[in-house]
Amino acid sequence: MNHGTRWLNHLSKLSSANIPSGLIEKGQNRVIDASLTLIRERAKLKGELLRALGGVKASATLLGVPLGHNSSFLQGPAFAPPRIREAIWCGSTNSSTEEGKELNDPRILADVGDVPIQEIRDCGVDDHRLMNIISDSVKLVIEEEPLRPLILGGDHSISYPVVRGVSEKLGGPLDILHLDAHPDIYDAYEGNKYSHASSFARIMEGGYARRLLQVGIRSITSEGREQGKRFGVEQYEMRSFSRDRHILENLKLGDGVRGVYISIDVDCLDPAFAPGVSHIEPGGLSFRDVLNILHNLQADVVAADVVEFNPQRDTVDGMTAMVAAKLVRELTAKISK
Amino acid sequence: MNHGTRWLNHLSKLSSANIPSGLIEKGQNRVIDASLTLIRERAKLKGELLRALGGVKASATLLGVPLGHNSSFLQGPAFAPPRIREAIWCGSTNSSTEEGKELNDPRILADVGDVPIQEIRDCGVDDHRLMNIISDSVKLVIEEEPLRPLILGGDHSISYPVVRGVSEKLGGPLDILHLDAHPDIYDAYEGNKYSHASSFARIMEGGYARRLLQVGIRSITSEGREQGKRFGVEQYEMRSFSRDRHILENLKLGDGVRGVYISIDVDCLDPAFAPGVSHIEPGGLSFRDVLNILHNLQADVVAADVVEFNPQRDTVDGMTAMVAAKLVRELTAKISK
Amino acid sequence: MNHGTRWLNHLSKLSSANIPSGLIEKGQNRVIDASLTLIRERAKLKGELLRALGGVKASATLLGVPLGHNSSFLQGPAFAPPRIREAIWCGSTNSSTEEGKELNDPRILADVGDVPIQEIRDCGVDDHRLMNIISDSVKLVIEEEPLRPLILGGDHSISYPVVRGVSEKLGGPLDILHLDAHPDIYDAYEGNKYSHASSFARIMEGGYARRLLQVGIRSITSEGREQGKRFGVEQYEMRSFSRDRHILENLKLGDGVRGVYISIDVDCLDPAFAPGVSHIEPGGLSFRDVLNILHNLQADVVAADVVEFNPQRDTVDGMTAMVAAKLVRELTAKISK
Amino acid sequence: MNHGTRWLNHLSKLSSANIPSGLIEKGQNRVIDASLTLIRERAKLKGELLRALGGVKASATLLGVPLGHNSSFLQGPAFAPPRIREAIWCGSTNSSTEEGKELNDPRILADVGDVPIQEIRDCGVDDHRLMNIISDSVKLVIEEEPLRPLILGGDHSISYPVVRGVSEKLGGPLDILHLDAHPDIYDAYEGNKYSHASSFARIMEGGYARRLLQVGIRSITSEGREQGKRFGVEQYEMRSFSRDRHILENLKLGDGVRGVYISIDVDCLDPAFAPGVSHIEPGGLSFRDVLNILHNLQADVVAADVVEFNPQRDTVDGMTAMVAAKLVRELTAKISK
Amino acid sequence: MNHGTRWLNHLSKLSSANIPSGLIEKGQNRVIDASLTLIRERAKLKGELLRALGGVKASATLLGVPLGHNSSFLQGPAFAPPRIREAIWCGSTNSSTEEGKELNDPRILADVGDVPIQEIRDCGVDDHRLMNIISDSVKLVIEEEPLRPLILGGDHSISYPVVRGVSEKLGGPLDILHLDAHPDIYDAYEGNKYSHASSFARIMEGGYARRLLQVGIRSITSEGREQGKRFGVEQYEMRSFSRDRHILENLKLGDGVRGVYISIDVDCLDPAFAPGVSHIEPGGLSFRDVLNILHNLQADVVAADVVEFNPQRDTVDGMTAMVAAKLVRELTAKISK
Amino acid sequence: MNHGTRWLNHLSKLSSANIPSGLIEKGQNRVIDASLTLIRERAKLKGELLRALGGVKASATLLGVPLGHNSSFLQGPAFAPPRIREAIWCGSTNSSTEEGKELNDPRILADVGDVPIQEIRDCGVDDHRLMNIISDSVKLVIEEEPLRPLILGGDHSISYPVVRGVSEKLGGPLDILHLDAHPDIYDAYEGNKYSHASSFARIMEGGYARRLLQVGIRSITSEGREQGKRFGVEQYEMRSFSRDRHILENLKLGDGVRGVYISIDVDCLDPAFAPGVSHIEPGGLSFRDVLNILHNLQADVVAADVVEFNPQRDTVDGMTAMVAAKLVRELTAKISK
Repeated sequence: MNHGTRWLNHLSKLSSANIPSGLIEKGQNRVIDASLTLIRERAKLKGELLRALGGVKASATLLGVPLGHNSSFLQGPAFAPPRIREAIWCGSTNSSTEEGKELNDPRILADVGDVPIQEIRDCGVDDHRLMNIISDSVKLVIEEEPLRPLILGGDHSISYPVVRGVSEKLGGPLDILHLDAHPDIYDAYEGNKYSHASSFARIMEGGYARRLLQVGIRSITSEGREQGKRFGVEQYEMRSFSRDRHILENLKLGDGVRGVYISIDVDCLDPAFAPGVSHIEPGGLSFRDVLNILHNLQADVVAADVVEFNPQRDTVDGMTAMVAAKLVRELTAKISK
Repeated sequence: MNHGTRWLNHLSKLSSANIPSGLIEKGQNRVIDASLTLIRERAKLKGELLRALGGVKASATLLGVPLGHNSSFLQGPAFAPPRIREAIWCGSTNSSTEEGKELNDPRILADVGDVPIQEIRDCGVDDHRLMNIISDSVKLVIEEEPLRPLILGGDHSISYPVVRGVSEKLGGPLDILHLDAHPDIYDAYEGNKYSHASSFARIMEGGYARRLLQVGIRSITSEGREQGKRFGVEQYEMRSFSRDRHILENLKLGDGVRGVYISIDVDCLDPAFAPGVSHIEPGGLSFRDVLNILHNLQADVVAADVVEFNPQRDTVDGMTAMVAAKLVRELTAKISK
Repeated sequence: MNHGTRWLNHLSKLSSANIPSGLIEKGQNRVIDASLTLIRERAKLKGELLRALGGVKASATLLGVPLGHNSSFLQGPAFAPPRIREAIWCGSTNSSTEEGKELNDPRILADVGDVPIQEIRDCGVDDHRLMNIISDSVKLVIEEEPLRPLILGGDHSISYPVVRGVSEKLGGPLDILHLDAHPDIYDAYEGNKYSHASSFARIMEGGYARRLLQVGIRSITSEGREQGKRFGVEQYEMRSFSRDRHILENLKLGDGVRGVYISIDVDCLDPAFAPGVSHIEPGGLSFRDVLNILHNLQADVVAADVVEFNPQRDTVDGMTAMVAAKLVRELTAKISK
Repeated sequence: MNHGTRWLNHLSKLSSANIPSGLIEKGQNRVIDASLTLIRERAKLKGELLRALGGVKASATLLGVPLGHNSSFLQGPAFAPPRIREAIWCGSTNSSTEEGKELNDPRILADVGDVPIQEIRDCGVDDHRLMNIISDSVKLVIEEEPLRPLILGGDHSISYPVVRGVSEKLGGPLDILHLDAHPDIYDAYEGNKYSHASSFARIMEGGYARRLLQVGIRSITSEGREQGKRFGVEQYEMRSFSRDRHILENLKLGDGVRGVYISIDVDCLDPAFAPGVSHIEPGGLSFRDVLNILHNLQADVVAADVVEFNPQRDTVDGMTAMVAAKLVRELTAKISK
Repeated sequence: MNHGTRWLNHLSKLSSANIPSGLIEKGQNRVIDASLTLIRERAKLKGELLRALGGVKASATLLGVPLGHNSSFLQGPAFAPPRIREAIWCGSTNSSTEEGKELNDPRILADVGDVPIQEIRDCGVDDHRLMNIISDSVKLVIEEEPLRPLILGGDHSISYPVVRGVSEKLGGPLDILHLDAHPDIYDAYEGNKYSHASSFARIMEGGYARRLLQVGIRSITSEGREQGKRFGVEQYEMRSFSRDRHILENLKLGDGVRGVYISIDVDCLDPAFAPGVSHIEPGGLSFRDVLNILHNLQADVVAADVVEFNPQRDTVDGMTAMVAAKLVRELTAKISK
Repeated sequence: MNHGTRWLNHLSKLSSANIPSGLIEKGQNRVIDASLTLIRERAKLKGELLRALGGVKASATLLGVPLGHNSSFLQGPAFAPPRIREAIWCGSTNSSTEEGKELNDPRILADVGDVPIQEIRDCGVDDHRLMNIISDSVKLVIEEEPLRPLILGGDHSISYPVVRGVSEKLGGPLDILHLDAHPDIYDAYEGNKYSHASSFARIMEGGYARRLLQVGIRSITSEGREQGKRFGVEQYEMRSFSRDRHILENLKLGDGVRGVYISIDVDCLDPAFAPGVSHIEPGGLSFRDVLNILHNLQADVVAADVVEFNPQRDTVDGMTAMVAAKLVRELTAKISK
């Protein structure tokens, strides 16, 4: 998938003299512009129609970010967005959420497609700009009221540019509920500041979150705990989940900030419930535990993501795709109004 | 995946009065324009650089067409393009083709990404316009010399708009070498003129092919044989392959026409060699049979496709992805010069 | 599997004049008679022997109903009965139930084989008569005291004719404990009154149940909830299971009616515990939750079923077959005395 | 699956005094009678209708024999018949055979269902009588002209009672074309005369075959070769297949006898082509090799079987089921006229 | 794997006269000596270095015992030790335990390799001597302070010689915490005193345990319960786990004896959490249940084992290997100090 | 698996001052001595007995080398030897080779177990010494006439020390028949001189081969072809296999040298026949092609290896294990006399 960078590198080596200076950069800029235009137009079409319809305050809007290369171990999450969409509309289940919202109602759930991550990378664009493109894409969605972004990852590195985009667009920090086996708060992982293990360090440094609650944690090093303390993160580890359950099933978040962001790493679940992840870490939450937390949460959810589903590790009949899809469905119910 | 159409339908029903006339159509047009612009810019970047480099006559250029909904049975081929790309560059093999071309050489193989099929359909665009968009995308690639399109399907319905695009752009009919278990030449399948079982009927009706050779055929009805006769197709059935082998391993095509097109349906192979297909039809070609035909073919190959790989039916370790990727690699060697 | 109907249709078209009127109907009647005779004789052999032995009040008796065609999505449950039997006697476990009953004791568990569903359908018999044959088969088992039917499905559409047969034979309504992810109480599904999504609507309309308790529900539409109210169904949804647990683990049913019927749809379990089902619906019961409800239930269980196990979706080592088998084993312990 | 025998054994031990003598035997006889009646009626219905239609000389007629317990290693072939039927009519392929026969034509292919092997065994009937029931079932099919039995196994032990039934009914020996990795001609396997490794010893001893050609052999002991010589079997081993190919693709059989019988053990194929078998023996025939032999065979085929497909060893997408089904389809074309 | 015994048997039969008496026995003795020497040297190297380092009181030390032939059903656990090691160091997780111990610290975890079980058996050594070799190997580890054995099974039959070795070396009985679906306390299984179903009968008879607590039990016969009473075993069955949970999460063991031994049969977990076991027994513990018991246990753990992981039944991505590895990791934290 | 090296590194860092100089080296030497002693004793036991029996000229002797870390992509071949042994003796096949040798005859096939590769590496021994240990182990086997080594890999890097050991022990070069998809003749792979892609470069440099024939080649770079020319290797590429077949099925090797060595990389086979390999390279040999070459080879085979079988990539029912085992079986027939 990283052929793009190699293509340009090899080309440059073959005959750097022949290639006019600026040719590459101009081409990249035009590709990036075209990519953002495509997202803008898709969001606009959906937003215009919902506004014409009237009466919708918030509509969950799928935006796929098929990025997997910032993972330390496997890159399969890049293939997730189309699989999650397929599972959301799979004929094996109906279109009601558990609390009775209708996904077939266009006021509840819209879709603006994927950020063309692989195509942009293939043109040699580096990670710094790629992260900006993700933030810009998120902003383009929010711009089109009543759309609210519901991001389909991708690995967890995308939560940083997504949260940044939401916070910058809304003009202030958020409260974040983060469900995960790992804190993803290391300063850098193998030197990569944009690693999927570092996204929440970037978020806290940037001041994009007032409160950060981490739930489901069971793979954490001493650095992870120290970073948590340093940034004032509220870390709920699995080893004390039976004691913390009451608190977590009665959360109220978001007062005094611009809203609440929910980030669900599919590996917050025990691998029994979600085997299709890159990092199998036994001892996690049950699917019902997650729903109990979500259903009872009091919050104005302004955006959310479901990340780290890896279709290359799923069962042959796609159980984890169905799990990721149901998380998206229940988040849709939480966001829309 | 067809939520898009439903979204617009449901919306219209909810309150048709409120939605200004033309709002939908204008939005669709802007999304289509943006989609084609994105492909144009990607092709332009690659084409400009290769022309600046100089000395390249033909460079195989990947263009993904993730379309699966015209299949009669399963729709998994829509997920194929990113999996084939991953397998092409997979660390388990090297970058040389069997006859010694170097895929790492940017003059040999370029990539312009995928046509955003699902995003366009999700905006309610119908199949007739979708097929035009595919033809237009192919033309945008050919426009950027020395790029030649090497299409990653997708189901076999895409070969019709691709061949049409190539033929219209080059200004005349082609010779087509078509490897498949099925003739895909039915007038329509369950009423769908754009079905993956009808693409070659459309191609022959349109006059886009002078000769059509079908190899590997072993699932054919009487209608299939009659359509073959009607259009003058040269059908080589598997039950006489041992007799025909000598002819097929010594083909010379394309004299007097604009070039040769090769369409490889992965199910031309016996399912032992390629289990990851929607239509398991025992008794097919071995992988070596296919390579022997390709390596010995004398032709100026102007474009090609590899279709009907279905990742949802592949083995857990992706054997068919590797098979599809090697077909793409060897076609690259055939096209580039 | 529905070739039978087609066979007769095609035949009729070929030359309707030649076929004497009544030939088909007489043949069908003879096949149905023979089918019921076979079940009668098998039940009789087992019943006679147990009566000769004496001292047995109730003996759980397996009757397979391999019917899958009333499913909306996949038809694999038609293959389940032989796989469940294999798993019951699998060498990997012993023959004691958790509370100490011995399955090897012939007084505890008998078997009268399968209703030849596919053979009857293949002779062109329609669903209305097929449902009657199932009810008749169940009655033939009950007739042979001390046999009590323990049905191996098949999809959930079979619970309607089974419950009807039991209720008609015993002469009054039953209390039903129904474990399932879905209420299966829709008026009809895609126009099919015998759909596996409608069986409990038929049961309630027929007056075959006094109380109906539904446990494990987590995929329900507004129609499902309204039908529930209309029929006075006690619906326990998973989203409040932690609150309802105490009630469900202390049930007493069946006073004043002819007995209690237990219907277990394998998908009442979370897919982590039972992946081999057609409808993957995360957030379900654990296996221990189900056993806690069963072990603590106070009731005279007169019949039961285990349905919707789909071997075509099971893990390669048959985990869900073992799960279905253990449900059958523990139901056996509950029934026999 | 052998619970039946155990049930009766345990019962007898519990209290033999109470059970009237003859009760078991009478019950078994009634179950056997009912089983044969069911087959007779199904065959009669199909036969009467085809005779009323007129003009059909031979119609291939599926009869399933789900027997797996005479296998030395795995017993999965007992689950094969319903899976093969499902694959024959699977929507992924059409209804034409390679040489153009239409399976949807009721004159070409009929179906009389399965012999209720497991139900009969479960009533304590021993193997000697079971084998007679199989022979009798085959005769009931042949009785109803123009039906000709096409048997779906089951393990290879069933070929003995099937061939015996055919030969006795037709009144003389047959020529047999036997495709297999193993000769299945051992005197007994682990003391079992009815073992799936001994069926052809029984056939030759019984004088049911004039010529026996074995093709695909690659797992044979010295006893196998000696038994071959003793019975005058023509054994074609795989290690000389490239030399023998010409003979085998030009066979003419059956002159001077009552007809030709074809027995295909799915493991004649290399496991690459048919992984779903109990005995993986690399180095076998390709699927096309088998078809070349069948298509070119000159013979009046009076009956045939496809055995040893083991669904419990198949790939998740059922490749071997499709392979077994295509063998059945092409045999149908060979038999019907 | 039992070719060794056969090799010697066949050889003896071929020509017993030629083989000098004692040749076999002498050879076996030399092989056994060499095997024990290899373990001694490995343990010595690790022990010497840790003692040279100083300050380590107890260091968990992996010793693999790849023995599977005493299993009643499947023998795959013989392949487990290398797979567990691979999973312990797998790049998908980090090196911290849940409570913060660092596995990369050489004072925490050492490894002395595997007892060459298969090589010794292949030389015709019988089970009685094999069990002694296992006990001796364990003693060689304990001898090298601060090493404490953490055994990687193998099937559960190995716990008997391991516990015997520990108890004999430390000079008195232990308290044993035994997590398992089965009590493994039968007098003998199919006549085998060393069966994996009898190891705890041997341990109790030998006086190697003062208290034996069995947790997770859900497949137990009347004999199992009687043996439990006879030996004073504290059996905690799953059907009352919700009542017993409080006791089990607050255990204090080992006062007045030589220390505590923990034996974890992976099938104590529900198969949803650990599908890769030979005996699938639904209704077990969750992974978190097990960790809650371990983390809260107050005890000086002198040795432990993790047994019955069967890689041949694991998911394709090795979920159960990760589960077994995490059990080993958390036991390491419990042992080391 | 490389924890050993890390363990020693970490230890050294913790407190290098405390560890007496030479302690590590002495410990390593004792572990290596003990390892070689164990192999010597096992070989001696088998050799002594066969010599006592008399009349055996050459007996194929299994020696496992579970080494996977010199692979460029996956390390699974380290798990292969026990799986191949299990498949050789698997109950699904008999004990005769295709040409009639009896594997149960102790004169035909012996086994001396595995070189404890992982245990030695875990003590910090480097690759240079490890390679010497492999060569020494091979020599210990040859020393015990009539044993001839039949090596179970392991990745292909082991062929270098094995061939070196054989050649040095026999006192001169060999002729080598090498079946593989790759030439494995690169000077170094990613700087590793002992890489599995470089073993034949080391062999040719060392003068251990007179002729080297490479068959099945289909993934080769220009460096691979140049190295082939440089060393005079006879490279038979798959793209001309149909032309070369006659030569390869009539080989006569070994005249004038010390004997013939056969090295079979399982990936010489097409992945359809052997999916369980690290490097899936379509277009390979069929299993029968390989046997035709082996059966017709005229040669005195002094040693052989079967390498690169990767159990972690095999099908769930172990098809490739059976393939590797049959290669070992047929090589046994070729070696023994």
